[in-house]
Amino acid sequence: MPTVIALDTMGSDRAPKPEVEGAIQAARHYDVRVLLVGREAQIRSELALHPVAGRLPIEVVHASEVISMQDKAAQALRAKRDSSIRVGLRLVRDGRAAGFVTAGNTGAAMATAKMVLGALPGVDRPALAAVFPTSAGTAAILLDVGANVDSKPHNLEQFAVMGEIYFRSIFGTARPRVGLLSIGEEESKGNELTRATHQLLKHSALHFVGNVEGRDLYNGSVDVIVCDGFVGNVALKISEGVAELVRDALKESLRATITRQVGALLSRSAFGDFKKRLDYSEYGGAPLLGLKGVCIITHGSSNANAIKNSIRVAAEYAERGINIKIESELGRQRAHSTGLD
Amino acid sequence: MPTVIALDTMGSDRAPKPEVEGAIQAARHYDVRVLLVGREAQIRSELALHPVAGRLPIEVVHASEVISMQDKAAQALRAKRDSSIRVGLRLVRDGRAAGFVTAGNTGAAMATAKMVLGALPGVDRPALAAVFPTSAGTAAILLDVGANVDSKPHNLEQFAVMGEIYFRSIFGTARPRVGLLSIGEEESKGNELTRATHQLLKHSALHFVGNVEGRDLYNGSVDVIVCDGFVGNVALKISEGVAELVRDALKESLRATITRQVGALLSRSAFGDFKKRLDYSEYGGAPLLGLKGVCIITHGSSNANAIKNSIRVAAEYAERGINIKIESELGRQRAHSTGLD
Repeated sequence: MPTVIALDTMGSDRAPKPEVEGAIQAARHYDVRVLLVGREAQIRSELALHPVAGRLPIEVVHASEVISMQDKAAQALRAKRDSSIRVGLRLVRDGRAAGFVTAGNTGAAMATAKMVLGALPGVDRPALAAVFPTSAGTAAILLDVGANVDSKPHNLEQFAVMGEIYFRSIFGTARPRVGLLSIGEEESKGNELTRATHQLLKHSALHFVGNVEGRDLYNGSVDVIVCDGFVGNVALKISEGVAELVRDALKESLRATITRQVGALLSRSAFGDFKKRLDYSEYGGAPLLGLKGVCIITHGSSNANAIKNSIRVAAEYAERGINIKIESELGRQRAHSTGLD
Repeated sequence: MPTVIALDTMGSDRAPKPEVEGAIQAARHYDVRVLLVGREAQIRSELALHPVAGRLPIEVVHASEVISMQDKAAQALRAKRDSSIRVGLRLVRDGRAAGFVTAGNTGAAMATAKMVLGALPGVDRPALAAVFPTSAGTAAILLDVGANVDSKPHNLEQFAVMGEIYFRSIFGTARPRVGLLSIGEEESKGNELTRATHQLLKHSALHFVGNVEGRDLYNGSVDVIVCDGFVGNVALKISEGVAELVRDALKESLRATITRQVGALLSRSAFGDFKKRLDYSEYGGAPLLGLKGVCIITHGSSNANAIKNSIRVAAEYAERGINIKIESELGRQRAHSTGLD
């Protein structure tokens, strides 16, 4: 039986094109059935450009409203009750889909998912986990990157447990290395939150490698990096800014230096290869961990490949029972901490 | 009369070579007298390689101890009372130098500076300000990047005032744009600290442009960016990590793509040009703002050019009376807030 994934077809910057193409690629390559959620007429006219879609396990589920990137999360939640995000998440809640994928408004998707699906028993706060490539050629995940601000030490401990289970289940690493994002390696370094969290993680069953610094995110020395949602969101946005700055400056220097012919060659091959090496879209978006259901949020600039990979990750998330593992692990911790073990 | 700058000659990764060379360049190009602070024998043997130094306003001040990058700040402060950092800062305190520059252990330099120089009247917490290039070709500063953690809203307001005065004085911008690093542009976005700070800055006399996000650091849309020292330090380290990742990945892609001849050309010219465009060393290190004295901390990997520029910035800092401006502005604020204005 294919795994059913509901896809917000109205979410990305160029929707519904990358969504429909990504869904077709996913339905071709993986054992999934994709529900395209959104304005039916718009989706059908995009589907008409791909006759192959008629022979693939792809269906359309109508949703009359669209939440834009400009919409405020709280307002969208109240005002747009038939949005593609809300309809898609209801399909998950009602058991008609095993997971949901959106490239739309992150804030609105998080707020809607928390409301429609609710948190898993034992989870105080769901967390958004960003997955990215390292210079070692491995993946790493950073969480929370924006689902919560002003978190407490026990929230960060739960983020660590959830992130570790996700990393282990998706990337097959037996004992992922868990680090705490701080500003100095010694356990005495950091702020009140990280010092208290350090003690919790040190005495946990996790493979805790201690405090890590900002530059460790990208050097492959740690798999799961835990932080408060404010710090994580800043980290993510700064990474995007620096990557753009360095790429643009280097491109301009190359343009100024070398002949047009070599430049054309480079932009086709080297930058293509480079883009692939650092392509976030290969990792399939950011899972929202700790919910009663599967919700993957991917970048608004997602192309078909990013959508395809997000659908794959959503299916793997569901098939590998990550939420059951999270619930049972956090339940065990809770029993332990209340002396019921 | 040349401005006298004390230079920690033992600080950088390859000390005392870049320090001595940078001091010679500075003494040649600017109206400064440089006091080379550190182990006299070592400094004199490096100076002997540059006969020109004998004709320049350069002197040696002996300090028998060296604080290494591995030394803990608090321990170094207690144990090494004759370190080059401490001796250099004493020269500033005693009025024998107008400013101090070090490429050594940042934590130890900050702790020693706070102890030896003390804070300016009205300054609750000194802040370390990082200066960096933007894609618009301008400079921007981010503070605090690590002098404090767990700051309060009024600390961040003081950082904004000090950063704005520094930026205005060094870069000659009439009304620098001040932004608050947060995770969303609306004033309701962020954590408890940023929401409260937003209100203070909004009602201040600064040219406050509101919340800015991580990617705005490098796009030139804001001049002075304010944040807590934990967030600022993470931001700085992540920036270094991403820049290295992108540069290495792109270099590798280029190597794999193009012929060796073109590669050699590129590494000589394009990467040289690229490096210059993003060269932090042109901006002369990070000032520690809010002290009774001038203290500039530059990167451990500093080359002679970075040292030269740090000496220039230290001299400009002293000549332009930045500390008097900070003291008077914060004094005015304090009088205003206590109704004495």
